[in-house]
Amino acid sequence: MNIRLIIEYDGTDLSGWQRQPHKPTVQEHIEAILARVTRKRVILVGSGRTDSGVHACAQVANFETDYDAPAEKWAAILNDALPASIRILESVEVPATFHAQKNAKRKTYEYRILNRSVASALERKVYFFPRRVDWDRVESCLPHFVGTKDFASFQGARPNSKTTVRTVLRFDLYRGGGGLYLLRIEGTGFLKQMVRTIVGTVLEVGVGLRRPEDIPSLFESPDRRRAGRTAPACGLYLLRVDYEE
Amino acid sequence: MNIRLIIEYDGTDLSGWQRQPHKPTVQEHIEAILARVTRKRVILVGSGRTDSGVHACAQVANFETDYDAPAEKWAAILNDALPASIRILESVEVPATFHAQKNAKRKTYEYRILNRSVASALERKVYFFPRRVDWDRVESCLPHFVGTKDFASFQGARPNSKTTVRTVLRFDLYRGGGGLYLLRIEGTGFLKQMVRTIVGTVLEVGVGLRRPEDIPSLFESPDRRRAGRTAPACGLYLLRVDYEE
Repeated sequence: MNIRLIIEYDGTDLSGWQRQPHKPTVQEHIEAILARVTRKRVILVGSGRTDSGVHACAQVANFETDYDAPAEKWAAILNDALPASIRILESVEVPATFHAQKNAKRKTYEYRILNRSVASALERKVYFFPRRVDWDRVESCLPHFVGTKDFASFQGARPNSKTTVRTVLRFDLYRGGGGLYLLRIEGTGFLKQMVRTIVGTVLEVGVGLRRPEDIPSLFESPDRRRAGRTAPACGLYLLRVDYEE
Repeated sequence: MNIRLIIEYDGTDLSGWQRQPHKPTVQEHIEAILARVTRKRVILVGSGRTDSGVHACAQVANFETDYDAPAEKWAAILNDALPASIRILESVEVPATFHAQKNAKRKTYEYRILNRSVASALERKVYFFPRRVDWDRVESCLPHFVGTKDFASFQGARPNSKTTVRTVLRFDLYRGGGGLYLLRIEGTGFLKQMVRTIVGTVLEVGVGLRRPEDIPSLFESPDRRRAGRTAPACGLYLLRVDYEE
């Protein structure tokens, strides 16, 4: 039976998605319970990795098992044993052909910034950014990132992809009130640290360190050193993963 | 100089507002820093106590000092030394007559309930309530709590007030989406655990354990044993405190 999971996690105290020796990762936590319950090695396939500290509202994953339990029961079985920072929102049976990584068509990330003079005691899973930001200026440069482009300037220090061309479908700013600003980006795929580097770059536009009209040159001559700083993981949320119906 | 503070705190790991020996409380944390900086005992007067585990978006407090610092600097001085779970949002000079407790005219509390089948990894400062709730039924009984009434049925196990008559000005339900429901209550004052006991009672109406039309009898013959269970502290937020201009 092929089971699809929808997973929410608070990345604050997790070392990201991918299994690593002696580190608390989402994949490791779930695979350990699956192995204990089924008494077999089970591989959990995620839609993609998230870095250490990154959160997910609805990560998608799947695993194959011949263990005799209704698909819907897996959410409760896993939640009983998982830490409170990881919750299985749904478990359903899917066709044998479903593969959470290969079949993913689009992903949406949200980056949350708290832009006010004092940090929040209650909202700490954000990027606290006290500098004065011209948000209209930030908004004006977002369309430069939409389209099929070479995002080599925006990939992490250790590249892990053959091609650096990616397609961004939407990139929008939402003003949440109380100093909370949300940057939401949807694309067919993302390079390592690409969202965080894009956010760091548009914030540099917002504080006046670079001009909106200089963004296109970052695509024309790709060079990581010319893009902005990588915004911290604590503000990044994997919001949703879309598949073909 | 009389200084007024606006304080936000995450009550999860705090033992409430009031100073207690060897316990992490908001008053204790702030008074300890004030004593260290001014080299004098300083009393911090809060608008009122909040119980262990209760949060505040904007608690109000004041203290008298002859220490030579501009009033506005106190926010930064305190934030530098406070844990991340307590933030001073504002410090301003106020007239010598200002007293955060005695002059408080109205308080607003918000109680946050997550009503869905699975708890949230990301939103844990809520009351996770997985039972099926008829929220229209909850809403229909809220007006019974508005007015000047004897709230003796809704006070905590160890009463701390001479009179149990209080005035509730508003009591509203907001549907936040994603299973989040907010009960917001405004009044001139509240008994110990009154908001949490009222919330526990209206939830019992929501799940069908009691009828909306039975609420008035709780005011007619006050008896704590006839009201509902006390909802947990983790969902309660002191939202604002209002003073005469």
